[in-house]
Amino acid sequence: MATLTCTASDLAPLLTTATTALNATALSEFLCGRFNTISTKFADTTYAVNNTYLLFSAYLVFAMQLGFAMLCAGSVRAKNTMNIMLTNVLDAAAGALSYYLFGFAFAFGAPSNAFIGRHFFGLRDFPSVSGGDYSFFLYQWAFAIAAAGITSGSIAERTQFVAYLIYSSFLTGFVYPVVSHWFWSADGWASPTRPHNLLFGSGSIDFAGSGVVHMVGGIAGLWGAVIEGPRIGRFDRTGRSVALRGHSASLVVLGTFLLWFGWYGFNPGSFLTILKSYGDGGTYYGQWSAIGRTAVTTTLAGCTAALTTLFSKRLLAGHWNVLDVCNGLLGGFAAITSGCSVAEPWAAIVCGFVAAWVLIGCNKVAEKLKYDDPLEAAQLHGGCGAWGLVFTGLFATEKYVNEVYSGRSGRPYGLFMGGGGRLLAAQIVQILVVAGWVSATMGPLFYGLHKLKLLRISREDETQGMDMTRHGGFAYVYHDEDDPSIKPEFMMRRVEPVNDASPA
Amino acid sequence: MATLTCTASDLAPLLTTATTALNATALSEFLCGRFNTISTKFADTTYAVNNTYLLFSAYLVFAMQLGFAMLCAGSVRAKNTMNIMLTNVLDAAAGALSYYLFGFAFAFGAPSNAFIGRHFFGLRDFPSVSGGDYSFFLYQWAFAIAAAGITSGSIAERTQFVAYLIYSSFLTGFVYPVVSHWFWSADGWASPTRPHNLLFGSGSIDFAGSGVVHMVGGIAGLWGAVIEGPRIGRFDRTGRSVALRGHSASLVVLGTFLLWFGWYGFNPGSFLTILKSYGDGGTYYGQWSAIGRTAVTTTLAGCTAALTTLFSKRLLAGHWNVLDVCNGLLGGFAAITSGCSVAEPWAAIVCGFVAAWVLIGCNKVAEKLKYDDPLEAAQLHGGCGAWGLVFTGLFATEKYVNEVYSGRSGRPYGLFMGGGGRLLAAQIVQILVVAGWVSATMGPLFYGLHKLKLLRISREDETQGMDMTRHGGFAYVYHDEDDPSIKPEFMMRRVEPVNDASPA
Amino acid sequence: MATLTCTASDLAPLLTTATTALNATALSEFLCGRFNTISTKFADTTYAVNNTYLLFSAYLVFAMQLGFAMLCAGSVRAKNTMNIMLTNVLDAAAGALSYYLFGFAFAFGAPSNAFIGRHFFGLRDFPSVSGGDYSFFLYQWAFAIAAAGITSGSIAERTQFVAYLIYSSFLTGFVYPVVSHWFWSADGWASPTRPHNLLFGSGSIDFAGSGVVHMVGGIAGLWGAVIEGPRIGRFDRTGRSVALRGHSASLVVLGTFLLWFGWYGFNPGSFLTILKSYGDGGTYYGQWSAIGRTAVTTTLAGCTAALTTLFSKRLLAGHWNVLDVCNGLLGGFAAITSGCSVAEPWAAIVCGFVAAWVLIGCNKVAEKLKYDDPLEAAQLHGGCGAWGLVFTGLFATEKYVNEVYSGRSGRPYGLFMGGGGRLLAAQIVQILVVAGWVSATMGPLFYGLHKLKLLRISREDETQGMDMTRHGGFAYVYHDEDDPSIKPEFMMRRVEPVNDASPA
Repeated sequence: MATLTCTASDLAPLLTTATTALNATALSEFLCGRFNTISTKFADTTYAVNNTYLLFSAYLVFAMQLGFAMLCAGSVRAKNTMNIMLTNVLDAAAGALSYYLFGFAFAFGAPSNAFIGRHFFGLRDFPSVSGGDYSFFLYQWAFAIAAAGITSGSIAERTQFVAYLIYSSFLTGFVYPVVSHWFWSADGWASPTRPHNLLFGSGSIDFAGSGVVHMVGGIAGLWGAVIEGPRIGRFDRTGRSVALRGHSASLVVLGTFLLWFGWYGFNPGSFLTILKSYGDGGTYYGQWSAIGRTAVTTTLAGCTAALTTLFSKRLLAGHWNVLDVCNGLLGGFAAITSGCSVAEPWAAIVCGFVAAWVLIGCNKVAEKLKYDDPLEAAQLHGGCGAWGLVFTGLFATEKYVNEVYSGRSGRPYGLFMGGGGRLLAAQIVQILVVAGWVSATMGPLFYGLHKLKLLRISREDETQGMDMTRHGGFAYVYHDEDDPSIKPEFMMRRVEPVNDASPA
Repeated sequence: MATLTCTASDLAPLLTTATTALNATALSEFLCGRFNTISTKFADTTYAVNNTYLLFSAYLVFAMQLGFAMLCAGSVRAKNTMNIMLTNVLDAAAGALSYYLFGFAFAFGAPSNAFIGRHFFGLRDFPSVSGGDYSFFLYQWAFAIAAAGITSGSIAERTQFVAYLIYSSFLTGFVYPVVSHWFWSADGWASPTRPHNLLFGSGSIDFAGSGVVHMVGGIAGLWGAVIEGPRIGRFDRTGRSVALRGHSASLVVLGTFLLWFGWYGFNPGSFLTILKSYGDGGTYYGQWSAIGRTAVTTTLAGCTAALTTLFSKRLLAGHWNVLDVCNGLLGGFAAITSGCSVAEPWAAIVCGFVAAWVLIGCNKVAEKLKYDDPLEAAQLHGGCGAWGLVFTGLFATEKYVNEVYSGRSGRPYGLFMGGGGRLLAAQIVQILVVAGWVSATMGPLFYGLHKLKLLRISREDETQGMDMTRHGGFAYVYHDEDDPSIKPEFMMRRVEPVNDASPA
Repeated sequence: MATLTCTASDLAPLLTTATTALNATALSEFLCGRFNTISTKFADTTYAVNNTYLLFSAYLVFAMQLGFAMLCAGSVRAKNTMNIMLTNVLDAAAGALSYYLFGFAFAFGAPSNAFIGRHFFGLRDFPSVSGGDYSFFLYQWAFAIAAAGITSGSIAERTQFVAYLIYSSFLTGFVYPVVSHWFWSADGWASPTRPHNLLFGSGSIDFAGSGVVHMVGGIAGLWGAVIEGPRIGRFDRTGRSVALRGHSASLVVLGTFLLWFGWYGFNPGSFLTILKSYGDGGTYYGQWSAIGRTAVTTTLAGCTAALTTLFSKRLLAGHWNVLDVCNGLLGGFAAITSGCSVAEPWAAIVCGFVAAWVLIGCNKVAEKLKYDDPLEAAQLHGGCGAWGLVFTGLFATEKYVNEVYSGRSGRPYGLFMGGGGRLLAAQIVQILVVAGWVSATMGPLFYGLHKLKLLRISREDETQGMDMTRHGGFAYVYHDEDDPSIKPEFMMRRVEPVNDASPA
């Protein structure tokens, strides 16, 4: 790269004779060469900073997969722990291959039509100027696997592993990518970044995916769980709901905190770039501020939902329940995910408060309808995700909408903020379309698997637990099974150093 | 934004005629326009880089809350696991609302007086040029909830949940913010960044909060635990100490490592900015080096404390104990937190070595006084935190103090490094003032709760465990309670695939 | 720092009179002053961005230590959990001191000879222009402790703690640093960054350490495990292999995901810098793209290995096993670690596919030879690591090799990519040399410890479990040992709130 520094003794001779055309050219080349070098270096710096930001955000989103695994593991009975954790590992692993081969191409392969992308299969001709860099692929992959992770919660403890492999590939490789194309690709028919013909002059604003990720995963789970029916024992003979408690609250809390941690990659990371000024630049306020604000709205929505759940459950159920609080928290996060970048922090508190009640309400309805969802995934991600889309239509502010979705003046914004109903209309269209698309694709798939007897496990497997019958054994062995000198009651005895045990 | 590139053919005509006043102006505008654009772009780049650095540091500090949750969970008996984890989730959740509404304003609301801040309530008029950006708010929130987390460890396994809600809000919303205002806000009376009237010409140096965070949390916990008294069975009838072992060493180690991971956000992150040169700039050595050095001193102090604890406990107790090593490690971290940025790496080793003995000594005293602190939080965070402040007064180097707290020449530094006693005096004042302030606020609060019978749980609750009586059930269900075909001894049997079980 | 902005009224007078020598000098100083300031600011920005990138990568690599701890803990029997976790904590803690005192100096102390470094003992005269900054030290320390962590898995459940302390210090402080000097230091005899006399005109390419880290740890473990022999009961009287199952699949999955998360620091982080253009710069494609691609190849190799293991184990063993899938995944990561930066994404899929079969094959051989490695560490890190070196010799592309190892044209690259056999030859030399060096140093060490009766624990300790006899007690206490009102069968009873228990 050309040098940027110079000394007065180099430059002075050029200036003293600059009135001749010849030297004027030399001086011009000298100066322009430096300015061009500076411009190049700024471009390089911008790429490096933005890629750093996006890569570490992608790593955080990936950490959510660990969060899902722990949350799911803790929420199921011990006998199905290996099964559910395997599905979570496979979401990431199978998702990587299917998203690499075609999922990413369907979602973001540009140029394309409004319905589906068609470039970058197997990352061919990638990266490119317009198509994004590898960090973008990695980030989007981490999102894609989250959707399948949500669904696996709904159908936990009673689904054949082979059914899991089928629906998971279909969801990550096709159903989800198409939805993300519609709302996030610049070509998508409902995208707010579309150059023209915006839906209601607005496009729907689903910044980090209350609809694209959470509703997709939740509604897919809803169909799976409805078609399979509840787990054995979930509703007793009289139809009364019987809680089938998960086996480890510690894993649930661990998973919830990891999801919280990862959500800072999910929501603020969805800006994709951080080195971007607003307006003329040079002031403390820019995209970095909007990113920080997004982290704050995310935090406040989740925390408000957690507190609301704490106190309302105390009133409704009579005790302080950390598991309910965890679910409330996640419901708040799922709801704010759509509007996190365009709502004020105080509005995020409203978002979280309502999300907690949406979740409580959905759970009441589910119980009435004898719907069994071991992770409350359809209620949480589907219900709170839908509320999140509505919330954005109500509370998106004019300033933030125009900053975050720049390049077009006079965008519609939230109804309650004085921005009219067009954004809200686009949001409602998104809810209907996502629900419809996922139902039309995943519903028949689950029904077909059901008819082919590939969906639900046998009564024997369900009673025994899948770990014993299908996955090689129970997840936990706290006693020493191989040493006859250790009596079975080992764990029950007072724990003290014992030195006189006979050798094996 | 204005263009930065140019070509010789654009610039040459301006230069050949630059001797006329008119064209000189045009040329000047051309050149200055570019320099101003460059300046603007550097400003934007600096904001983007520093916000990236601070945001990810904040996420790491947040991860410490997960670390606390796991550490606390593993350190209590299984019967109180749900209770302690709920308090950790609520630290973060309730802390977010109270810190948003008024805590941040008390701490950093500028302009203000030397005692308490008074702007930015509910993030009103925030962000601003002088008040910081959202990333700063997020970072400080993550610090605030750490203090309450420390305290919850001291009073674990015997405190009413409602008492927890009260003291936690008071601590995060008022007691802690005021302390952070004193030592970290540019307006604070003891702050080293105060523009004039520095305490002893120095201000006390508590870089990342050995005093502001750890002592505050530890001393608050001390009063709570003293007023409540020890857990049932912690000291037997003859007054002999009986260890009430935590239920899971795995969770303790998990929590400790997560805290270690998060401490890299806590200490190096406290620089707040990374794109800052020292001196004239342009060399490999700048704030980024100081940040790296801070990560190294933090690592060395913790590791030395861990090793010191390992060998001393081997001599004192006769076995190698991972739980003690974990606590020693954390004690080393708590101690170096004050001086991490201004001490040499070799001094950090001294810091950690002494910290291990401070913790051992405090634990001896605690046992003598029949003081029961399930997490050793008062000893670890209070004791080692106080030692950390003294350490800084002894070992802070002249070079680093002047680099990290720049803009004022001739600052006092560590006594042992030849810098006189003024910094040490300021550090001791901090210890006394923090101890006094927290005692004067939290002591009466806990005493009042005690008198109102809101502090300690009943004997029945304590014996049964709070999870069963207050939080909806036991944290773990390793056997299948709902299926009569699975005998209670299930877990005790040899683990083998069994395929002939009768259907439920 | 000098100002960068200017106004036309300042500059115009200089230009109108620039034809006189005096003013030409003033103008030159004006312009050059600004260009020099710009140059300085770019240097500062570059340091800040690269240190940010390297520091957070180092934190991720550190998180792998937590991953190892959880993976190891879950893979051993409950009775040895405290023991194995203590060794993992000590890897990091003792490694920090030994690497600070001399390990880093042996590895990267420059200038030095081709065999071993000899500067920067105790970080003396560090940081320096050529020696790297503190972030580089931290990053390399995090690598060093990984090697020792691998070895501890091979010899788990039967090794004296004092033996552990001895071999661990020797490995982290000497054996590993020397290897990293050979292949990663610019002075190393086999390094591809060596200025001249490259091995086979190429140097071996072990980008992030399939050989330097994984083979070193794996082969050290191999010797330890061979000399100790298998655990009691691992092979029955007839010589049949008996699985000694780990006690918690949840911990295994947790650890695996954490290692995956940390590997994004390990592989992409090994670029050390992100703000570096390729070619003339100014385009979207630069080192940031190569870093993203490295994250993608890493992901694809691990995921392919996981899927390959899933299906092949289903065929071979008849069930879907999450523990095997986890090991397969890690084998894929260990293999791609060498060539992650120089292979195409599709080649990474090949790498992972073969890695899965390498691991399966190594495990078959191990079983035949009655070799007992509780973590399969020698097979996984040694076997897949060696395959990874070969893979790079076969699949490294010309373009990527020349970009990543720039500054020298016409480098050899992968045999299958048309680059001839010289790189492959260098890779095979590395395999032989690493295997030889580690065997020549660690073999005698373990044998000496064995002869001194310091290596293996007693039959009594092994049967009882080391936690009870050496580490202060069992890792888990799920029942309340101190309260006689809680009967021993507590955990076996139906879990229900019980309010009528008699007080203790």
